[in-house]
Amino acid sequence: MDDKITALDLAPAELSDATEAYFAKCREKLGLVPNVLRAYAFDEKKLRAFTDTYNDLMLGESGLSKLEREMIAVAVSSINHCYYCLTAHGAAVRQLSGDPALGEMMVMNFRAADLSDRQRAMLEFSVKLTEAPAKVVEEDRAALRKAGFTDRDIWDIASTAAFFNMSNRVAAAVDMRPNAEYHAMAR
Amino acid sequence: MDDKITALDLAPAELSDATEAYFAKCREKLGLVPNVLRAYAFDEKKLRAFTDTYNDLMLGESGLSKLEREMIAVAVSSINHCYYCLTAHGAAVRQLSGDPALGEMMVMNFRAADLSDRQRAMLEFSVKLTEAPAKVVEEDRAALRKAGFTDRDIWDIASTAAFFNMSNRVAAAVDMRPNAEYHAMAR
Amino acid sequence: MDDKITALDLAPAELSDATEAYFAKCREKLGLVPNVLRAYAFDEKKLRAFTDTYNDLMLGESGLSKLEREMIAVAVSSINHCYYCLTAHGAAVRQLSGDPALGEMMVMNFRAADLSDRQRAMLEFSVKLTEAPAKVVEEDRAALRKAGFTDRDIWDIASTAAFFNMSNRVAAAVDMRPNAEYHAMAR
Amino acid sequence: MDDKITALDLAPAELSDATEAYFAKCREKLGLVPNVLRAYAFDEKKLRAFTDTYNDLMLGESGLSKLEREMIAVAVSSINHCYYCLTAHGAAVRQLSGDPALGEMMVMNFRAADLSDRQRAMLEFSVKLTEAPAKVVEEDRAALRKAGFTDRDIWDIASTAAFFNMSNRVAAAVDMRPNAEYHAMAR
Amino acid sequence: MDDKITALDLAPAELSDATEAYFAKCREKLGLVPNVLRAYAFDEKKLRAFTDTYNDLMLGESGLSKLEREMIAVAVSSINHCYYCLTAHGAAVRQLSGDPALGEMMVMNFRAADLSDRQRAMLEFSVKLTEAPAKVVEEDRAALRKAGFTDRDIWDIASTAAFFNMSNRVAAAVDMRPNAEYHAMAR
Amino acid sequence: MDDKITALDLAPAELSDATEAYFAKCREKLGLVPNVLRAYAFDEKKLRAFTDTYNDLMLGESGLSKLEREMIAVAVSSINHCYYCLTAHGAAVRQLSGDPALGEMMVMNFRAADLSDRQRAMLEFSVKLTEAPAKVVEEDRAALRKAGFTDRDIWDIASTAAFFNMSNRVAAAVDMRPNAEYHAMAR
Repeated sequence: MDDKITALDLAPAELSDATEAYFAKCREKLGLVPNVLRAYAFDEKKLRAFTDTYNDLMLGESGLSKLEREMIAVAVSSINHCYYCLTAHGAAVRQLSGDPALGEMMVMNFRAADLSDRQRAMLEFSVKLTEAPAKVVEEDRAALRKAGFTDRDIWDIASTAAFFNMSNRVAAAVDMRPNAEYHAMAR
Repeated sequence: MDDKITALDLAPAELSDATEAYFAKCREKLGLVPNVLRAYAFDEKKLRAFTDTYNDLMLGESGLSKLEREMIAVAVSSINHCYYCLTAHGAAVRQLSGDPALGEMMVMNFRAADLSDRQRAMLEFSVKLTEAPAKVVEEDRAALRKAGFTDRDIWDIASTAAFFNMSNRVAAAVDMRPNAEYHAMAR
Repeated sequence: MDDKITALDLAPAELSDATEAYFAKCREKLGLVPNVLRAYAFDEKKLRAFTDTYNDLMLGESGLSKLEREMIAVAVSSINHCYYCLTAHGAAVRQLSGDPALGEMMVMNFRAADLSDRQRAMLEFSVKLTEAPAKVVEEDRAALRKAGFTDRDIWDIASTAAFFNMSNRVAAAVDMRPNAEYHAMAR
Repeated sequence: MDDKITALDLAPAELSDATEAYFAKCREKLGLVPNVLRAYAFDEKKLRAFTDTYNDLMLGESGLSKLEREMIAVAVSSINHCYYCLTAHGAAVRQLSGDPALGEMMVMNFRAADLSDRQRAMLEFSVKLTEAPAKVVEEDRAALRKAGFTDRDIWDIASTAAFFNMSNRVAAAVDMRPNAEYHAMAR
Repeated sequence: MDDKITALDLAPAELSDATEAYFAKCREKLGLVPNVLRAYAFDEKKLRAFTDTYNDLMLGESGLSKLEREMIAVAVSSINHCYYCLTAHGAAVRQLSGDPALGEMMVMNFRAADLSDRQRAMLEFSVKLTEAPAKVVEEDRAALRKAGFTDRDIWDIASTAAFFNMSNRVAAAVDMRPNAEYHAMAR
Repeated sequence: MDDKITALDLAPAELSDATEAYFAKCREKLGLVPNVLRAYAFDEKKLRAFTDTYNDLMLGESGLSKLEREMIAVAVSSINHCYYCLTAHGAAVRQLSGDPALGEMMVMNFRAADLSDRQRAMLEFSVKLTEAPAKVVEEDRAALRKAGFTDRDIWDIASTAAFFNMSNRVAAAVDMRPNAEYHAMAR
């Protein structure tokens, strides 16, 4: 942990064994320890709550594919102009889709992409929930059902879009810096 | 669980023993099971990730008092016009402060309240992070430090404001209904 | 008039007999003299113009019920985050409807309420008129007529929504404080 | 009253003697009966409440000159893009100032005008009150006091800006048409 | 060039013969040299690029009439509150239409005008492109085609609306002042 | 020209010799013909006006470096979420700076970058001019002068930011597609 990864001075002198083990697993699987985990590592309880939520949401069972969840992550982060999340999750969209241009479109403007009706409905809902949560009404849920989503899928779309509205704001508030490796991944 | 608490059809046929026990503890401590917990109870993993995050954030150790954290919750929810969170956390501000008018001000417009410089800085930061996260810069963090907050406090302000930006959106997306009991509490 | 009710130093040394009589009538009917009247009382002409407008609008003959007019008042004030009007007229919705939760929904987000098509159309028009008056077009009036409103009703909806756009701004500009009694009324 | 002056069908079969007399006075003084008065004339009580409020506000005693009050009217109406008020009050600014370009600047963008610090402060306050009433705080009132305004002047600035936020919305809601004569006046 | 026409100090000591000749032609045709040309005249290359673009766009062959192009110019400039463009192009709408009120409506709120479906579609597209370019989608182009526009017409609508989004911003950035003569033209 | 580069059907049967020659030069210098040029090529006059403007602005003499002009282009396009311009000019920032992360920051949120005071002032001005042109006042120009910019530099900053507000909107209106080659350049 050489470089500063947030604007706050919070990092612990040393990591616990459990956290070290978790980070080792990240290195093995991802080739890096995402800086967001280092940022939370000053408090193990917060780190664990974050990773439990994140792993269930983004990697757990769902009617949404992993790529679809990453597309929501990036479309939401684009509205909020979150440098950390656009960098990390933009790379994920490029990797999971094998389509670098799709990742760029999610970062820049998802409306530029040639999407299925299902994916367009999913992203339009996520964007409305981001920009004007107070205006979401039954018609919006009905549009998702009409596009083929189950009630459980709607929960997952909502939770993913909502989670990145949280994560974008934590990153903005502390000026979180993404790992440099993301920029070149899957180009 | 008689009435519908969200617009989605997700509730499980029956709760696990662990969840029943947790809900019993809620009834004992709070006099009710917050509907948000019932809403998450369709999936134990999601429920636990939510309660772990929530309990650490709102009840754990922090340089912010519990009342201050609730004030952030309500000021953020006011911007997002979240019926669930304004009802539940507005009640919490009334209870923790013993000042019903303070709860109402947080719900309606925190700028109406006669706050200390510390609390005003804390809420102005939370509001900017909610309304324009992309525009948060070092000057904003500096203003919090000048108002007496440590870097760890800044993390907690940011995390709390960010968490309710998530929670407001989950509630809006699924039309979550607050427990009726909140309305009359601590008036 | 012990406490300051606005941030301006305008109150008269003493009230005229006519104003005293009017205030006595308020005390008899409402149990209090609304602070907005005290705020205007520095100038009898302004006070009378205000009460004439207000009484005709909110209490006079109309195709809208008194409750419906109060619902418009609160839904508009919610957008403008007006502490004075949300407090005073939120209480009125609770009283007139006998439904405390309805008052809270109007304060927090009228879309949370289970409204008739008529009332939803009425509030959606009021909200558009508040947020984007320049974009109101014939289709918006047609939607009100389709929901069963006459042209005279449309005038009354428009006038009520417009009036609170005025009143919210006077209250905000002078930091008008509502009577403390409102908070506990009809809970 | 040949042409339609609003989109609503409300005009009375005939005007009362008192209203006819009032309109005759308008014709004598202004050379026309402002269409807003004809619009309100379907109900004498509403007409009188409107004219009492308007005449006190725009023509009564005040620390603000009549031109300054008209400048506020137009600057507010510019934000709200109100065709009726920009036409009628734009003409008033041209007439009262003898400076056609000043009227145009108020209609188009008051920041283009070369204003005194006093007038700039007055208009900036009016604009903030129009665009973001919830964000008006003591510092905003302090800025007016620093620019030389008394507390009574602040009330008048606030009342004028607030009144046109009402009037703009009534006009927008009913598609009120200004008298054609205004366009060529004082060019 | 007596008066300052922008807030920047850029004007050349003297104009080239080619520019003098061009300005003479303007005086002959329009009765004045538009100040925007004087503003660009500090650099002949920039002046020529501007006039080439402008003349092709506003005076060249197109399925849009010259009046329609001016209507777009003014409706866009109204949203951006551009004093220069509203003054110069508002005059053009008055002149080309022979209808002073139409010019005023474009300046104040184009929705007040009684337009054909074609012209309303054209202006609604221009306004959306101005206010929310990221949200323009195929449905928006389809609406133009349905209103009778060809693909080439769509290009011209888009180019005109886009050009004034540029021109409004150059004028705002340098505080460009319109020629005084415009105010009285074609009233 | 195999693939569709806009949503409009405008491409000419064949290009003129002059245009072919210009495109050959592009291929030689850039390795590709930017699709924006193909999009304009349906009309040689429009193409030439565009390239004259563009080349002077982005490649001509200026107190701003070419990289600085590209940074403005991308920061403006980020606000407008323009897929075409973010792709093409994001690549330019990466190339000119030799710093891929800088290009990404301009695309995502320029506030994430560690900029000099000069460059921050330049971009903040460009962003204000993009988001709220009507609110640009003398203080904004003064801030640029204080950061070391001359009046001529201010013109160039303004012109560049304004140009991309045009270009972003032409691209959005016609759904312009960037050349695929940009995505992988200078990563």
